[in-house]
Amino acid sequence: MTQKRLFICDYSEGAHPAILERMAQTNMRQSVGYGEDEFCARAREMIVDACGGGDLDVHFLVGGTQTNATAIASILKPYQGVVCAESGHINVHETGAIEHSGHKVLALPSGDSKLTAEQIDSCFAGHYNDCNHEHMVQPGMVYISFPTELGMLYSKAELQAISAVCRKWEAPLYIDGARMGYGLASPQCDVTLKDLTELADLFYIGGTKQGALFGEALVICNPALRKNFRYFIKQNGGMLAKGRLLGLQFETLFEDGLYFRLASSAVTKAMAIRDAFKAAGFSMLVDSPTNQQFPVLPQAVIDRLAEHFGYEFWQDAGDGMSAVRFCTSWATTDEAVNELIDAIRKL
Amino acid sequence: MTQKRLFICDYSEGAHPAILERMAQTNMRQSVGYGEDEFCARAREMIVDACGGGDLDVHFLVGGTQTNATAIASILKPYQGVVCAESGHINVHETGAIEHSGHKVLALPSGDSKLTAEQIDSCFAGHYNDCNHEHMVQPGMVYISFPTELGMLYSKAELQAISAVCRKWEAPLYIDGARMGYGLASPQCDVTLKDLTELADLFYIGGTKQGALFGEALVICNPALRKNFRYFIKQNGGMLAKGRLLGLQFETLFEDGLYFRLASSAVTKAMAIRDAFKAAGFSMLVDSPTNQQFPVLPQAVIDRLAEHFGYEFWQDAGDGMSAVRFCTSWATTDEAVNELIDAIRKL
Amino acid sequence: MTQKRLFICDYSEGAHPAILERMAQTNMRQSVGYGEDEFCARAREMIVDACGGGDLDVHFLVGGTQTNATAIASILKPYQGVVCAESGHINVHETGAIEHSGHKVLALPSGDSKLTAEQIDSCFAGHYNDCNHEHMVQPGMVYISFPTELGMLYSKAELQAISAVCRKWEAPLYIDGARMGYGLASPQCDVTLKDLTELADLFYIGGTKQGALFGEALVICNPALRKNFRYFIKQNGGMLAKGRLLGLQFETLFEDGLYFRLASSAVTKAMAIRDAFKAAGFSMLVDSPTNQQFPVLPQAVIDRLAEHFGYEFWQDAGDGMSAVRFCTSWATTDEAVNELIDAIRKL
Amino acid sequence: MTQKRLFICDYSEGAHPAILERMAQTNMRQSVGYGEDEFCARAREMIVDACGGGDLDVHFLVGGTQTNATAIASILKPYQGVVCAESGHINVHETGAIEHSGHKVLALPSGDSKLTAEQIDSCFAGHYNDCNHEHMVQPGMVYISFPTELGMLYSKAELQAISAVCRKWEAPLYIDGARMGYGLASPQCDVTLKDLTELADLFYIGGTKQGALFGEALVICNPALRKNFRYFIKQNGGMLAKGRLLGLQFETLFEDGLYFRLASSAVTKAMAIRDAFKAAGFSMLVDSPTNQQFPVLPQAVIDRLAEHFGYEFWQDAGDGMSAVRFCTSWATTDEAVNELIDAIRKL
Repeated sequence: MTQKRLFICDYSEGAHPAILERMAQTNMRQSVGYGEDEFCARAREMIVDACGGGDLDVHFLVGGTQTNATAIASILKPYQGVVCAESGHINVHETGAIEHSGHKVLALPSGDSKLTAEQIDSCFAGHYNDCNHEHMVQPGMVYISFPTELGMLYSKAELQAISAVCRKWEAPLYIDGARMGYGLASPQCDVTLKDLTELADLFYIGGTKQGALFGEALVICNPALRKNFRYFIKQNGGMLAKGRLLGLQFETLFEDGLYFRLASSAVTKAMAIRDAFKAAGFSMLVDSPTNQQFPVLPQAVIDRLAEHFGYEFWQDAGDGMSAVRFCTSWATTDEAVNELIDAIRKL
Repeated sequence: MTQKRLFICDYSEGAHPAILERMAQTNMRQSVGYGEDEFCARAREMIVDACGGGDLDVHFLVGGTQTNATAIASILKPYQGVVCAESGHINVHETGAIEHSGHKVLALPSGDSKLTAEQIDSCFAGHYNDCNHEHMVQPGMVYISFPTELGMLYSKAELQAISAVCRKWEAPLYIDGARMGYGLASPQCDVTLKDLTELADLFYIGGTKQGALFGEALVICNPALRKNFRYFIKQNGGMLAKGRLLGLQFETLFEDGLYFRLASSAVTKAMAIRDAFKAAGFSMLVDSPTNQQFPVLPQAVIDRLAEHFGYEFWQDAGDGMSAVRFCTSWATTDEAVNELIDAIRKL
Repeated sequence: MTQKRLFICDYSEGAHPAILERMAQTNMRQSVGYGEDEFCARAREMIVDACGGGDLDVHFLVGGTQTNATAIASILKPYQGVVCAESGHINVHETGAIEHSGHKVLALPSGDSKLTAEQIDSCFAGHYNDCNHEHMVQPGMVYISFPTELGMLYSKAELQAISAVCRKWEAPLYIDGARMGYGLASPQCDVTLKDLTELADLFYIGGTKQGALFGEALVICNPALRKNFRYFIKQNGGMLAKGRLLGLQFETLFEDGLYFRLASSAVTKAMAIRDAFKAAGFSMLVDSPTNQQFPVLPQAVIDRLAEHFGYEFWQDAGDGMSAVRFCTSWATTDEAVNELIDAIRKL
Repeated sequence: MTQKRLFICDYSEGAHPAILERMAQTNMRQSVGYGEDEFCARAREMIVDACGGGDLDVHFLVGGTQTNATAIASILKPYQGVVCAESGHINVHETGAIEHSGHKVLALPSGDSKLTAEQIDSCFAGHYNDCNHEHMVQPGMVYISFPTELGMLYSKAELQAISAVCRKWEAPLYIDGARMGYGLASPQCDVTLKDLTELADLFYIGGTKQGALFGEALVICNPALRKNFRYFIKQNGGMLAKGRLLGLQFETLFEDGLYFRLASSAVTKAMAIRDAFKAAGFSMLVDSPTNQQFPVLPQAVIDRLAEHFGYEFWQDAGDGMSAVRFCTSWATTDEAVNELIDAIRKL
């Protein structure tokens, strides 16, 4: 029997072959360590270019939890917390890495995994209006993910409103871009990397889920947040000895737009899967325009699909229904998508 | 004009005069520091007696936030969090002291500031049933307050159920007793200190709000949680050099039941105030049987009472109404209560 | 038999009687909590006056370990450490409270418990000259104690040199003044509180060891270090509910120079004890001009003195000799000192 | 002109080609994430075999600082510190990652970068003999590196003595094996991995410096230290999404002894370089039997070698001399070594 087609997540395979090739070609070249090599230098330039140029700091870290914890710890004072949606990755799936660094995650309710500018504004206003505010954790920055954990996007107008509220309260805005490419490549997206450099104080462009073996590129837009940042990376265990591996991967992904082409292809496939579920009469947990799709299915359907396909159980949806997650990625094949769509049609 | 009568909180005055007297009498006696003196030794014995005897460790700390942070840090592993009600003091009013020590507060929703055994059980079950549980903060202990921040009490049956769930999940149960006496002295209370020693793993008996200048007595019932506890106290800045002051105060409060008499008197006064508000047609935010009362009042009434009485704004209650807090304490005079009741009647 | 005369430490008794009297007089006065009361306001003014006036922030905390941990945590970035002498209280006797807040104590060798400006300068220069400095803890501030743990004083010229080095490296200078009064009252001292406000960024004036029941007054001279400081106090468990007790004590000590009179008397007694040991042919571990004296004695002498006097073993001094500590305090009586001196003479 | 021959460190190149080949071969295979894949399973088995079999837990992490911080944080109580040599990597070159997790590094003096069993015993005895021990950081475990930061090895007898002291004090022994292979492959080594499983509580086998792109294999021998370890890895940002990459690399290195062959070759080359320096009349900072060599050279010699070779400045050695470090690695070529030896001969 053949192996199941896995749509469980977007990191089931290795890396795009171009990365492995370049790794092999440059393998015995000697370089200095810790990200101060020529590969990283080139990759930084390419990322700055992709962001529309300008004065930006770019650092490469190994993984997302580490990047989030490092970035947030570099900003907050000990008595401050980070505002995020209840569903935010830092609030749910990082084993308390943020709290481990001493900071409360100030989680706000969110049905669709997005925050609104109004919510954020209320959170800050509520804090400062409380006469006991010194007894409470001060909101010190805002974390959003783009796309969110449910694959949702913020429109440019929404980001502008959030950014304005953050600046009003002098609170840096940080965007977790673990799946940044899948967001930018969505037909629904009206935001560019250049917009993000203007609206956010820092954000990261995810590699792990988008064609790299591993690696995240953190872009620090706000000059006030750059000082001594490499100390933070080292202290948080994120300074890879052979930092060249990070540079080499981002160089490969960004030198001719590979990153965006791979993401675009994955999103197209996700849209096809979404359409198939909808055509088969199923509703979606949210209307995600990116590479993660969350159909709400009865158990019998779930069991049947499970015979040939891998997905992730997401949440109970009541009435014997469950939301499950199907992810596409840079590595998803047409064949796999077609088989899945066929199977959905035959349900 | 006379000063306002303050019902703002239960720590507006100094200490019961018996404490000041004993302090003056023993002032020039020399003793060793850090809680290893004869005063602390006697106070420990008295508290153990009040708890029905048995094998108990008693430590004295200066304040509540410190006691909570120290007790919780002594129990949790770095990857664990403490389960508590959303309204729990550690979640709201300690400037993130728990997170500062590296731990997430796992806040559960609670309309009336109490947790149920079912909620706690679901929280633990939910964690361990999640196949990604290693990516999530593990619930490691349970925090409840008795009385709660809204003055509510748990019945013995409720505490037994909570204790059973905690033991099922091998999670210590910690009770914040900042206002312990006001709870035990309530006519509605069916729990004794001895019951707490059997149901909880550790709890504290508050002094600051109940007649002492300052000081909290932490009782560690579970022998497994006692090792090296004094290191924790010192590290958290809670080891008072002149520890005798803590011993002396608890000795005074416990040697002939003063602690309970003071609490009882305060609760009686609170019940009278509650009855007055109810008789005047106002509802209460919750049905508190202890020294904190939360009438829901229109702004005009609030303003009128404010001319002569101090209280604390608690929360907006919708429709132009607000819940405000009136506290009684060991120091509340009959005169002050009578004036307040008169004023309520005249509204 | 009579109790031994204790010279073990400077916190064996309660408080100066004037404090207890004022506490009794004001006991039933109602005040707001957490240090925002009239007592604290008056004490702040008096301390600012004692410091020569000017723009200073004054906060009251309960104990020394807490004050040190709070002050240091308010200054350092996560990747920074605090430079101090190996013998510094924060390095030795606070159960790692500084490390608990995430920071390395960068301990420099010191024979006599003092740091030199040259040592500090080398420490900073060494860090920045190392091409791997991002892999090392960055020195971020300097901690000295005045007097030191061995009772030693810095001269004004020494403090000026240290202050200049700190400013050169943009590193705040913090002075632990647990025994500040005993330092200022020493005949050898050429420094005033006003000098400290100009040379240090922040320092504290100790109450616990100098006539108060407890309490330390932290003076923040550098305006850049003041923002949101009360959040730090609360988070570190140092915000006393009945903050008035701290204000009241410092008010009593500072309103007519009582603090300095008490310290001066203790130092005079210490000098008499020192002279007695020297006259009896014993050497001192260091030449302390303050209330702590460290004679180096053979075991037979130690045992003989132990029959009637309490002292603290300090350290092995080789050749069967030990250094022991004799402390005087605001509470040391002439009678006790005379008995000790007699005993030394008879050795 | 040709590029310089770099002997700066042992992580200047990519990975052994066999690793890249296997990565390419398996690239599109789908697997589950976070180290629960088949590659990791096989690599674990091979490592257990290399350790002589038995009941061992093996975890794969990305880098050394992370592995150290995670392992140490998993063992210590909040009031405990880790004993290590002053020159220990965790004390010097990890930007305070250990302190960041709340723990003091208890650094003991060491001329040659090794600790002795006597030193460790004294450290523990000194702590518990001090009557103020609750005011001090309790030593809670011991960290040694094998080889040390100066390339030194512990003999089996030395390790047995250290292990016995650790067990006497109930303090786990942790061995940092960033360069474990170079140690085991040294002709001077009389220790096996199996010995380490019996003498240490946990240790790691370094990949980054020994042929892998990155990765460290942590072996937990003591069953009491295993519980919930994966939570620690995730919280510390060390759980690689594509954990298969770690498994694949260790599988390649361990399946036919490649790891040991590569290390052996590097050590042979280091011995040749050492012999050349000695033959040329230079002394070595220490007598290292592994891949790091520290000749003490005058500046003129250093400058001359710098024309064609890369090395690392290590420390000033007085009299105008400096110790510099030359490293060999799995990737060092015969050609490079021969050129260096020729150059040394011609000095």
